[in-house]
Amino acid sequence: MTTGFFGDVSPIRYEGPDSDNPLAYRYYNPAEMIMGKRMEDHLRFSVAYWHSFAWQGGDPFGGQTFERPWFDETMEGARLKADVAFEMFQALGVPFYCFHDADVRPEGSTLAQSISRLDEIGDVFAAKQAKTGVKLLWGTANLFSHRRYMAGAATNPDPDVFAYAAATVKACMDVTKRLGGQNYVLWGGREGYETLLNTDLKREREQAGRFLALVVDYAKKIGFGGTILIEPKPQEPTKHQYDYDVATVYGFLKDFGLEKEVKVNIEQGHAILAGHSFEHELALAASLGIFGSIDMNRNDYQSGWDTDQFPNNVPEMALAYYEVLKAGGFTTGGTNFDAKLRRQSLDPEDLLIAHIGAMDCCARGLKAAAGMLGDQALIKPLEERYAGWNDRHAQAMLSGQMSLDEISTHVLSNDIEPKPRSGRQEYLENLVNRYV
Amino acid sequence: MTTGFFGDVSPIRYEGPDSDNPLAYRYYNPAEMIMGKRMEDHLRFSVAYWHSFAWQGGDPFGGQTFERPWFDETMEGARLKADVAFEMFQALGVPFYCFHDADVRPEGSTLAQSISRLDEIGDVFAAKQAKTGVKLLWGTANLFSHRRYMAGAATNPDPDVFAYAAATVKACMDVTKRLGGQNYVLWGGREGYETLLNTDLKREREQAGRFLALVVDYAKKIGFGGTILIEPKPQEPTKHQYDYDVATVYGFLKDFGLEKEVKVNIEQGHAILAGHSFEHELALAASLGIFGSIDMNRNDYQSGWDTDQFPNNVPEMALAYYEVLKAGGFTTGGTNFDAKLRRQSLDPEDLLIAHIGAMDCCARGLKAAAGMLGDQALIKPLEERYAGWNDRHAQAMLSGQMSLDEISTHVLSNDIEPKPRSGRQEYLENLVNRYV
Amino acid sequence: MTTGFFGDVSPIRYEGPDSDNPLAYRYYNPAEMIMGKRMEDHLRFSVAYWHSFAWQGGDPFGGQTFERPWFDETMEGARLKADVAFEMFQALGVPFYCFHDADVRPEGSTLAQSISRLDEIGDVFAAKQAKTGVKLLWGTANLFSHRRYMAGAATNPDPDVFAYAAATVKACMDVTKRLGGQNYVLWGGREGYETLLNTDLKREREQAGRFLALVVDYAKKIGFGGTILIEPKPQEPTKHQYDYDVATVYGFLKDFGLEKEVKVNIEQGHAILAGHSFEHELALAASLGIFGSIDMNRNDYQSGWDTDQFPNNVPEMALAYYEVLKAGGFTTGGTNFDAKLRRQSLDPEDLLIAHIGAMDCCARGLKAAAGMLGDQALIKPLEERYAGWNDRHAQAMLSGQMSLDEISTHVLSNDIEPKPRSGRQEYLENLVNRYV
Amino acid sequence: MTTGFFGDVSPIRYEGPDSDNPLAYRYYNPAEMIMGKRMEDHLRFSVAYWHSFAWQGGDPFGGQTFERPWFDETMEGARLKADVAFEMFQALGVPFYCFHDADVRPEGSTLAQSISRLDEIGDVFAAKQAKTGVKLLWGTANLFSHRRYMAGAATNPDPDVFAYAAATVKACMDVTKRLGGQNYVLWGGREGYETLLNTDLKREREQAGRFLALVVDYAKKIGFGGTILIEPKPQEPTKHQYDYDVATVYGFLKDFGLEKEVKVNIEQGHAILAGHSFEHELALAASLGIFGSIDMNRNDYQSGWDTDQFPNNVPEMALAYYEVLKAGGFTTGGTNFDAKLRRQSLDPEDLLIAHIGAMDCCARGLKAAAGMLGDQALIKPLEERYAGWNDRHAQAMLSGQMSLDEISTHVLSNDIEPKPRSGRQEYLENLVNRYV
Repeated sequence: MTTGFFGDVSPIRYEGPDSDNPLAYRYYNPAEMIMGKRMEDHLRFSVAYWHSFAWQGGDPFGGQTFERPWFDETMEGARLKADVAFEMFQALGVPFYCFHDADVRPEGSTLAQSISRLDEIGDVFAAKQAKTGVKLLWGTANLFSHRRYMAGAATNPDPDVFAYAAATVKACMDVTKRLGGQNYVLWGGREGYETLLNTDLKREREQAGRFLALVVDYAKKIGFGGTILIEPKPQEPTKHQYDYDVATVYGFLKDFGLEKEVKVNIEQGHAILAGHSFEHELALAASLGIFGSIDMNRNDYQSGWDTDQFPNNVPEMALAYYEVLKAGGFTTGGTNFDAKLRRQSLDPEDLLIAHIGAMDCCARGLKAAAGMLGDQALIKPLEERYAGWNDRHAQAMLSGQMSLDEISTHVLSNDIEPKPRSGRQEYLENLVNRYV
Repeated sequence: MTTGFFGDVSPIRYEGPDSDNPLAYRYYNPAEMIMGKRMEDHLRFSVAYWHSFAWQGGDPFGGQTFERPWFDETMEGARLKADVAFEMFQALGVPFYCFHDADVRPEGSTLAQSISRLDEIGDVFAAKQAKTGVKLLWGTANLFSHRRYMAGAATNPDPDVFAYAAATVKACMDVTKRLGGQNYVLWGGREGYETLLNTDLKREREQAGRFLALVVDYAKKIGFGGTILIEPKPQEPTKHQYDYDVATVYGFLKDFGLEKEVKVNIEQGHAILAGHSFEHELALAASLGIFGSIDMNRNDYQSGWDTDQFPNNVPEMALAYYEVLKAGGFTTGGTNFDAKLRRQSLDPEDLLIAHIGAMDCCARGLKAAAGMLGDQALIKPLEERYAGWNDRHAQAMLSGQMSLDEISTHVLSNDIEPKPRSGRQEYLENLVNRYV
Repeated sequence: MTTGFFGDVSPIRYEGPDSDNPLAYRYYNPAEMIMGKRMEDHLRFSVAYWHSFAWQGGDPFGGQTFERPWFDETMEGARLKADVAFEMFQALGVPFYCFHDADVRPEGSTLAQSISRLDEIGDVFAAKQAKTGVKLLWGTANLFSHRRYMAGAATNPDPDVFAYAAATVKACMDVTKRLGGQNYVLWGGREGYETLLNTDLKREREQAGRFLALVVDYAKKIGFGGTILIEPKPQEPTKHQYDYDVATVYGFLKDFGLEKEVKVNIEQGHAILAGHSFEHELALAASLGIFGSIDMNRNDYQSGWDTDQFPNNVPEMALAYYEVLKAGGFTTGGTNFDAKLRRQSLDPEDLLIAHIGAMDCCARGLKAAAGMLGDQALIKPLEERYAGWNDRHAQAMLSGQMSLDEISTHVLSNDIEPKPRSGRQEYLENLVNRYV
Repeated sequence: MTTGFFGDVSPIRYEGPDSDNPLAYRYYNPAEMIMGKRMEDHLRFSVAYWHSFAWQGGDPFGGQTFERPWFDETMEGARLKADVAFEMFQALGVPFYCFHDADVRPEGSTLAQSISRLDEIGDVFAAKQAKTGVKLLWGTANLFSHRRYMAGAATNPDPDVFAYAAATVKACMDVTKRLGGQNYVLWGGREGYETLLNTDLKREREQAGRFLALVVDYAKKIGFGGTILIEPKPQEPTKHQYDYDVATVYGFLKDFGLEKEVKVNIEQGHAILAGHSFEHELALAASLGIFGSIDMNRNDYQSGWDTDQFPNNVPEMALAYYEVLKAGGFTTGGTNFDAKLRRQSLDPEDLLIAHIGAMDCCARGLKAAAGMLGDQALIKPLEERYAGWNDRHAQAMLSGQMSLDEISTHVLSNDIEPKPRSGRQEYLENLVNRYV
């Protein structure tokens, strides 16, 4: 007995590349083995409650376009929303979902009431998880939508907001743990500033450091076994967000001694806004040992704001999963779609179709990436390119056994004049195109 | 007896705001006391040899436009160039200059010859410094123009390039020390990548870390008392440069344990390319304890590449020097113009006029900044805004005396609901406009 | 007897540059004569109802922050809003205001009701205009906020939307005429597309052309003596808006033969989003004969979306008004602030302060511009630069009297080799800085 | 008997998708029939002499990296370059090439000598064309590299430059005609400004209009049967280029009555710099009747300058060729690669590999586009979306038979309230992914 929201939709099946059924997978085949692991276990798809069930279609120049029966800010609406959400998770066959507190329950008139409502929906989720096998990828707290957070949460000039945010996060961590969440995410959407003129950067940065330490300590205290994740974003809604990009978050973690405790949840669109390619952010996080999870929603390259679209470019997915696979794949992380339907995509079917296309796009990307990695197609040229560093002198320089003046003497006495070699970029780009 | 390059120019004098003499200062008045210090000692102006005397006016779609008698790649040319450069330093009355090795001597046919030529010009400079009183703000090595560096210097896949770069830097550090340089700068213009496909990010990052450690060690070894500076830039000529911005450099320094040894030289145009305001980068560096020096050349806001223009917007300068003053002012650093004449500005006089206008613009900015700081115009509202943090509970949260659950209990048992207060951005912006 | 919204504010007075009263003008002195005209009549300031009284403080990641007593979507609220608005217009002493239909009346349950409510508020405005002397700069229709316009108004795939929009515009033109509006504005915020995949560009462009022709015809029919204005914007909320920038609008007008009938309302922030400086758009519009009016709200240079901030940079204002003055000044147009308070600026006083600062900034800019123009400071170098074109041969080339091969013969037989001359950009930039 | 530059390379063959030969085509199969036409005749590939044979690998921070035996600025070098170029054209099997005058001959000491050298190389080309069957897609004049053009060519403040440019273009048109060139291109790389302060926009725009009219007239006079093409670009090297984008060029052509005489050559990278997608510019040009030809070189999405890279993203190519096919395909135009090797791609083989990969990428895109078009996959949903406009009333509105007030009466008397329908963007994106 379903809500009927999606009509009489049956579970989406894999039908292979030749299918022209818009409600079938052409590439996502959960049980298919890729490099010794099921495709499902590689991709670890997750649907974000927020954009799919709580967002109403507004933008800065227009209001609600979606008309969903649960948009009424009541607990009945919240339960109906949960019913529909799990119907979609099951129809899609995704193993995971994730949520903000504000996505799943109406705001209470007091914090206590908000928390009690969250707990109540937590019970609903627990039952649904048990029944369907869908698991929680991560929970998080919305510390940016309400006007109390307009000047930040942890970094607010008002310590009451810090405290209120802390209490909210505690409640969200509690419910995340209860539901077996595999990660806990912090997105500091308002942790930043609108103008430096009213901002004490140093002070706010320290507030943020303390807040994160509190979260890490509490996770240990309650025995939360999952990963704490920070989601970098450079700006919007703020002019500057403190968690600008992976490199910035790394410096922040190092500064507060948390680089072993916290990893990053990288969003494609946020990478773009920060002036990076997605694969850059992935590769950097992996090289720094802080790669955690991904939000697979893209930004339009011609738009300067966060468009949060479903992915649709296979070659880009291939490069992204190539970095994921090189990093050893996901552990607690996964591929979450924190993507919004376009606000003109009014029909329930659009929700299904958007996820199906995105999952197929990722599956194609993963297969291409696995092909490249399996063949060591890119790795062999890379090893060749750096082969000179295997030399004894090179190692001595790198390990610090030679000082600057010793290296200088070595160069001058041996008349070393480097011989430039082709970087072969076009060859490597063509090579990637064999796999996508 | 001068070269005559600038005609019979006399030293540029301060004539006050009402002067309409294009070859006079209207605001830069070296001896004027600002907050108890001479204006000259606040601003510590420096002219970059590179763009003013070595750049020939080319861009990606066109070649040389400037016709200078020293563009002949000979040592005679190099000496003439030095004569003209010091004539300009004296005419302008700037206390500092700075240079890359490649700016001041023709490349030799071997490294040994390049170094010997650098040393020879070093002698010329030493004599001129003694005679004129002009001092060296910093020296640096050009590790990006020659084709041997096309794939990076310290981060090159070829260890011979690493070694060659190391030997080059050693020579530049030697001459910098000999000339009493107050800083040594590293700009890693090719330390980055064109494509991730041929790049081992982790490995290259470690090469960069080792290289920097070698430089720091060598500075100690030779008793170089100045500051080692890294100049962040996000990209161009590379697709991605490892020294992306201040936050990225900070994480890098922390990772290699060099955050006490190295500071940053921040360029306005590079801040813009990285998606930041200049004042953001300054404020961040100050808050992290790594603020060193500035390159005061702006980028056009509508251009996506490094336009390196002379500054001309007084309100922007005011905000920049406000951060400099708040950080305690320059110690070894200064205000360097690494700015290029527009390639159509062919006349020798254009060189003078560009610097005069830039210096005046900075002087006006400094005076406005000192006014704001002296009146505590922005500081008082800031203290008021964060005043809540002086509270005992707030301090307990910040110092780590309260855990997340204790804070939660505190919030719930006291029914804390924060009261939003105006951020007063427009008020503060108007207030700044009283000073500029 | 006032609403008390602004407390007991008295009219804002001019107190001169030395005033530190945040509720006084330091530069805006309405009666001051500038180039033979009152400052007020040069600037023709206007307040936009929309952002100042109807916008609630939301952004894509957060909801309402402002708490205004009229945010209740009733006609009582609408009347209270009008009372407060006119209190502010009078306090500021601005001669003009402007509005969208949706700003001033709650949406009705039918179009007929919406129109009747608009007419009712029209009566309120008429009375207030008569009493206060405040005039209507322009009226416009909001054809973008309601979900019916999600796929455009004139360019909607559904002709019912075209028709509905046409009926709405007719009503807005009627009330604009009745209130003596000096212009009628069209901003096509949704006239564009989200994806080319579902868009027939050619067809939609023709719909837009027809719609504009209908508006022009109706203006004539009802004897509307004001100017019809299009407000260009490149994107946001759409991926691409058909009225991208001034040059695009010009091509569109030429295509539909409307270039004599319609002018442009240029917004600083929209210029920035399109990759132009504000002064470029102004200069281009003037050179094409379609300059109409300006929206003086800036975008943050580091943000890729429409931040609609109050202006605060005097040198930029100077360059803008320089173009306005060169174009002969405003006729029916004016300086409208379609600017939003920052969403943290909660206090009624912030509304006043923001406008005061903006008006002062514009006044300083105007004075600087008038100074430059009066002295012909920039004009003389310009005439000198192009002086060669006064030559007979040059004029023959330009007028078409010489053909390409005749010019070639002329060049070859006279061995013409051009002599590059300095473009003197830095000199001219310094010169501008004498005036700001 | 070859030059040996490419070693003993044999002609590149089509070997099918499974080939892993880097010197074979996997998709480009010239004789394959696509929609009734040979693939070769659809794509009409052309190699740009400029970037492939004349560019030396410099960028703003570094000099020459390529070492080609013809980089000696002699006529012998020019002949060797021509030999190698035609060897590559033949090896690749491209039907077309194109060139600037400055690419193919060393600059003379006088214009007469420059022209005579161009004519001499013209003879060489004529012979090679006859022998190889390779044809000239277009010729053009380099009016931007030499310092005489630093302030523009047609739009220069100095009429001597206008004249010199005119004489140069005449010579280039002559040789283009002689060689059977199918188009003549104008790229106004310096037709724009660095600063408005020294620019008379209106005057320069008129100079540009006259220049273009002279070119059009001369083409008729000499019976040049090809198409005159303008290549839009928004900026770089200038701050603003008058031929900003397709819409701007259209307005310019309309203004000077040349919209029937001149079409556009659209470059992917230039579209990106102007804030547009490539397919937007193609669709717009087609809808305006001015689509001519394409330069298929991409920009890096994270870089703000013209990176001129070889295309490598198949889905993007599919959308581009979809617009080309919808526009009826090329007539005189073609697919030109005005792309640069990365400056680290030193080897002759890199030149071949870059073109091979790009051609394969285009071929795959074309096949996908033809599939979509053949199935009317996107066209059917589009027709459905706009079907309402087939209605009588809708047509009456569109044709101008109903006035604004008549439409209003129609809406009000019929209580028309539009019913929003899904825009189905995600469905359409998935649909495209079936074809790529």
